[in-house]
Amino acid sequence: MAPKQNYAAVVHGPNDLRLEERPIPEPAFNEVVLEIDCCGICGTDIHFLKEGGFGTQMLVKPIVLGHESSGIVRKVGSSVTHLKVGDRVAIEPAAGCRTCDLCKVGKYNVCLDGRHCTTQKTDGNCSNYFAQYADCCYKLPDHMTMEEGALLEPLAVAVYATRRADIRLGSRVIIFGAGPIGIMCLIAAKAMGATRTVILDLDRVKHRLDLAKKLGVTGAIAIKKDETEDDLIRKIDEVLGGPADRVLECTGSQPGIRTAIKATRNAGRICLVGLGNDDVQLPMVDAISREIEITTAMRFNHDFPAALEIVASGYVDVKPLVSHHFDLKHVKEAFRVASQGEGNKVLIHLVPRDTNNKKKFVN
Amino acid sequence: MAPKQNYAAVVHGPNDLRLEERPIPEPAFNEVVLEIDCCGICGTDIHFLKEGGFGTQMLVKPIVLGHESSGIVRKVGSSVTHLKVGDRVAIEPAAGCRTCDLCKVGKYNVCLDGRHCTTQKTDGNCSNYFAQYADCCYKLPDHMTMEEGALLEPLAVAVYATRRADIRLGSRVIIFGAGPIGIMCLIAAKAMGATRTVILDLDRVKHRLDLAKKLGVTGAIAIKKDETEDDLIRKIDEVLGGPADRVLECTGSQPGIRTAIKATRNAGRICLVGLGNDDVQLPMVDAISREIEITTAMRFNHDFPAALEIVASGYVDVKPLVSHHFDLKHVKEAFRVASQGEGNKVLIHLVPRDTNNKKKFVN
Amino acid sequence: MAPKQNYAAVVHGPNDLRLEERPIPEPAFNEVVLEIDCCGICGTDIHFLKEGGFGTQMLVKPIVLGHESSGIVRKVGSSVTHLKVGDRVAIEPAAGCRTCDLCKVGKYNVCLDGRHCTTQKTDGNCSNYFAQYADCCYKLPDHMTMEEGALLEPLAVAVYATRRADIRLGSRVIIFGAGPIGIMCLIAAKAMGATRTVILDLDRVKHRLDLAKKLGVTGAIAIKKDETEDDLIRKIDEVLGGPADRVLECTGSQPGIRTAIKATRNAGRICLVGLGNDDVQLPMVDAISREIEITTAMRFNHDFPAALEIVASGYVDVKPLVSHHFDLKHVKEAFRVASQGEGNKVLIHLVPRDTNNKKKFVN
Amino acid sequence: MAPKQNYAAVVHGPNDLRLEERPIPEPAFNEVVLEIDCCGICGTDIHFLKEGGFGTQMLVKPIVLGHESSGIVRKVGSSVTHLKVGDRVAIEPAAGCRTCDLCKVGKYNVCLDGRHCTTQKTDGNCSNYFAQYADCCYKLPDHMTMEEGALLEPLAVAVYATRRADIRLGSRVIIFGAGPIGIMCLIAAKAMGATRTVILDLDRVKHRLDLAKKLGVTGAIAIKKDETEDDLIRKIDEVLGGPADRVLECTGSQPGIRTAIKATRNAGRICLVGLGNDDVQLPMVDAISREIEITTAMRFNHDFPAALEIVASGYVDVKPLVSHHFDLKHVKEAFRVASQGEGNKVLIHLVPRDTNNKKKFVN
Repeated sequence: MAPKQNYAAVVHGPNDLRLEERPIPEPAFNEVVLEIDCCGICGTDIHFLKEGGFGTQMLVKPIVLGHESSGIVRKVGSSVTHLKVGDRVAIEPAAGCRTCDLCKVGKYNVCLDGRHCTTQKTDGNCSNYFAQYADCCYKLPDHMTMEEGALLEPLAVAVYATRRADIRLGSRVIIFGAGPIGIMCLIAAKAMGATRTVILDLDRVKHRLDLAKKLGVTGAIAIKKDETEDDLIRKIDEVLGGPADRVLECTGSQPGIRTAIKATRNAGRICLVGLGNDDVQLPMVDAISREIEITTAMRFNHDFPAALEIVASGYVDVKPLVSHHFDLKHVKEAFRVASQGEGNKVLIHLVPRDTNNKKKFVN
Repeated sequence: MAPKQNYAAVVHGPNDLRLEERPIPEPAFNEVVLEIDCCGICGTDIHFLKEGGFGTQMLVKPIVLGHESSGIVRKVGSSVTHLKVGDRVAIEPAAGCRTCDLCKVGKYNVCLDGRHCTTQKTDGNCSNYFAQYADCCYKLPDHMTMEEGALLEPLAVAVYATRRADIRLGSRVIIFGAGPIGIMCLIAAKAMGATRTVILDLDRVKHRLDLAKKLGVTGAIAIKKDETEDDLIRKIDEVLGGPADRVLECTGSQPGIRTAIKATRNAGRICLVGLGNDDVQLPMVDAISREIEITTAMRFNHDFPAALEIVASGYVDVKPLVSHHFDLKHVKEAFRVASQGEGNKVLIHLVPRDTNNKKKFVN
Repeated sequence: MAPKQNYAAVVHGPNDLRLEERPIPEPAFNEVVLEIDCCGICGTDIHFLKEGGFGTQMLVKPIVLGHESSGIVRKVGSSVTHLKVGDRVAIEPAAGCRTCDLCKVGKYNVCLDGRHCTTQKTDGNCSNYFAQYADCCYKLPDHMTMEEGALLEPLAVAVYATRRADIRLGSRVIIFGAGPIGIMCLIAAKAMGATRTVILDLDRVKHRLDLAKKLGVTGAIAIKKDETEDDLIRKIDEVLGGPADRVLECTGSQPGIRTAIKATRNAGRICLVGLGNDDVQLPMVDAISREIEITTAMRFNHDFPAALEIVASGYVDVKPLVSHHFDLKHVKEAFRVASQGEGNKVLIHLVPRDTNNKKKFVN
Repeated sequence: MAPKQNYAAVVHGPNDLRLEERPIPEPAFNEVVLEIDCCGICGTDIHFLKEGGFGTQMLVKPIVLGHESSGIVRKVGSSVTHLKVGDRVAIEPAAGCRTCDLCKVGKYNVCLDGRHCTTQKTDGNCSNYFAQYADCCYKLPDHMTMEEGALLEPLAVAVYATRRADIRLGSRVIIFGAGPIGIMCLIAAKAMGATRTVILDLDRVKHRLDLAKKLGVTGAIAIKKDETEDDLIRKIDEVLGGPADRVLECTGSQPGIRTAIKATRNAGRICLVGLGNDDVQLPMVDAISREIEITTAMRFNHDFPAALEIVASGYVDVKPLVSHHFDLKHVKEAFRVASQGEGNKVLIHLVPRDTNNKKKFVN
């Protein structure tokens, strides 16, 4: 039933994506080898494909893309006890070295020597087979689909971001960007009790704002080309009934971060989640004199258990996020759609759809 | 329309509750005078009526009971700008001195010189008229009932407690006590993302556990007389699928706090909300060696805005908490019912029901 | 003994400072009227004098400058109990409205309606007489000089900043800017346990770096014109033995904040204290992908008691900060010296030096 | 030079301590084998020797005592890079499993499956040889003695406790217990800026209070047999000039924890460090109604780097803590002295004193 070969989506340089065969890995003592079921495309993957990386993480060799995957355990390392062959799992694609100063205090997500998928040094898992630390694999209950398992990764990003942003019951929250992370942040913020939410994105991705409306955002603002920061702040204030308490910035763009600072109340809190422009011009006298706190969130920080729990219990529904499905052989088209923002989350299926689901994935 | 006289429910000593006439107050410059609509009975009121107070707050003179009220603004102090005669408001019944070390850092709720209703020195507001600082009065939107306004007080207690307990998305939460505060804590914990919740109370108040079930608690445990701590911990573990992350202890009883400590995972967090036994025997080697954090919550800490927001927006429904309604003249019977735990929240109506509501209060 | 008239240093516009007579104030019920002893010049004062203000706080009318003062109580409001005529006090020059959302949770320092000295709407206290809320006046012990009392204000700024920065035992700390706030931050950081500290300032204010060395900084870097960010980061790393854990940014300049971000370890924490360029270009992909936390500190947050305590107890010595003394009549020269950074803290004496000191102020 | 045999201090049951020979360990890939230089005796060791353990950690087999050691690297595991044979190191005696929920978020100190020295399942290191994870070994600079290296363990406990207690500049701090941990807490609290400190212990260990005085405690209270809680609170208030902000409770005794609660100001914070009575009777209505926060600290949480830094830099001096020195062959006498509280820290030397020191250890 399982593929006999291990094909992987490998980026060799800007706009050079290839489907290549790689050896099927063997598990180390503390690893499992997974047959990947499906894999979502993330903005980071697109940064690698379009620009050859981001920040200090520029390609130095070809790497496998993808890090939002679920899979089936096919081999189990010698010391692994909590998983067995056949288990269906969501895969946390980041792990620290476990011995450095950062890992010891629980910040493995920014470990300098970590094994973080889709970085300069580390392959992702848009491939038929992938070896991962067993403790980074979370067993899915039977009633969850493999697609929901793959979606735990962006959900975990959002759970972490809302935690860092300190969203509270009754918070007024701005979300910049209505792409997959923005939408997940909306879901998480509402689940934590944000009652007034406003999401902003460019006019040309109105379908993303429509999804946000379907998911219950209080107001969705389609940014027009000639709109100033002041225009946006006024519109945000109207939706929220005043300045924001909290902001989840998912674009990393200069207008996003600038407006985040200016639209936040004194002593409010912003969490920067999205990676965008390397350098941005920011109104820091405003930020300091009004004591805005600017925190940041990179990846997640052991948020898979919470992400799994809130999906498995039915507390949140992440299925509506998925807009497109592609087989691995159409991976280039999948990346084209994802990078042009035609839909929202694009999934690549490494095995035929619903092979590993008790009930079909429908959204 | 308004009463010409100011009757108040005054406690003179243990089991000595009297309905007395008091002068109608005049507002200071920063106050409003309110005609009270309705007032809920709280455990603290019962402590005063049964035992003459709690902790260091023992009666030294007769005081008016009640501090869960809503009312209509009848007079406005000279410097008040955000309220006018006729406004319908929820009343925050605690205020600090605003100049001490505690108030300056935002801990007015435990200000030593505060004006906290129903304490040794300060009258409550189960009376026809009551003068309060204008900034402690929160205007209700038209679609909210005065009863919901009164319920903001216990809801604010719960919002604060869940905040102090650091409830998160996917938390496993124990709630000890299914009285009004326990039920409000359940509502707040679920609203913040607790997916697995278990509530415990004595076998004889099963109707309270039934309400918790109606409100979606994962499991409700009726404690039988001969059950040991270990029995309870085993049952809790079964409901939660493991030890708790967080506890909201709303009884203040020795079994409640002891079991809270023992049923919590290493490095878990407990918030003590309920006032019960003055002295309790606690397993502190267990608490320390497993690094359980024990925090406390007294009153609320500017949580009325959040409480108002989540009710007004429809995010939570607090109406099911109310089990009984009494007119002021039946205040003694109201207290009897409340103190025997026959229902859940008991409301005393100072004016005829629905006088000030656009739509009838139905639960 | 006391002056019969109230002269004040009033700024009318950029570079338009005048010594004017103002009425001697009377105390409100909760105020005291103080005869000012001495007053330090702060960067904010210089912003007003040079540029007519900062951020949104641009002059709309002439205001009295100065907010780092100590004084003698000359009149006492009707409800004031903890102070009496003749008391020597340090003056906290910021107070909130005490009723808004920010004040209630303890953020009075950024209250939108606060009485913060030397802002667009509020006079400072470089004047012979000044009325202040009694609870903002901190009685000095006999062994402290009035000059030390005046220095509590910048020390309180630093105490707050180090608290916000979460300086710890053994922290490696960078301080950008060796002006009065930078030096106070160095003192506070060392007092909290920072063992490796590095301070940076421009080559032309080497005397400030020399003061830092005298106060025990691990390394002082004089920034030369042609030095790049990378040059500075390398030098910082050399002094600290690796990237910084914490940064106190006291310049508000683009190079300062940029280098702060880049020189900090993953998951490190920066506190922005200084107000400088309105807009600054910042490396945010670096900040986000390495999860740098950027917090801000405006004024202080009830830090006068701690500032007073650590000076009064002898735990820290702030006297070395003072470089110049001027009488009020030479206020223009005082401002010239302060704004050109010729020394460090410049004090203006409203009464003859040591009039109110038990022992002479010597540094 | 090195011993050819591996002798260890093994506890077989209450009051049954034996010097036994054990095999010399070989390092796993990520370990080093250390020749122990010296080892301090801790209260936990005494709990094992006197009562066969503490809390749930009761002896099930003989274990080696001791966990405050320094040593010389004698063998290095295959993947270890930062240490080499001959390095002088302080040994962190606790490590988590590195894969559980607690370890991932940085709480390895209470990992349920951790390798924590001197627990029910895990040998300590009062033995000639000991294998430890390389990342738990901290290289000492040449100018530090091996004795200071051993003292880093109790210092790390104190650094963690003061961190958890949130000691600040100007804090008023009570320390219960003047044994080694109490004294280390005093050192750490003062190093973080506590200006007023009071330490309490029983009358019969006055020499410990004398040490505290030598180290600069503001007041030392020798508790007499017939003194009530109220007596102590009054004395504490006198020393501190009011109720405490923070408490470090290092006895775990009922009187200690009770008095801690009662002597703390509203909204103050207590950190429980010492393990004492399993069950203690506590005034919880007082604690809750005054919103005292009770946190706990078990072991340390990656505090060895800070502990090493503050000793190596000369910021604190821990040498005065040592009162007695014994050779391994006199280990029983060492334990007798330690358990009777005759001095303060008792050190056992596994090799002749100063063998591995550049300069002699003198205190």
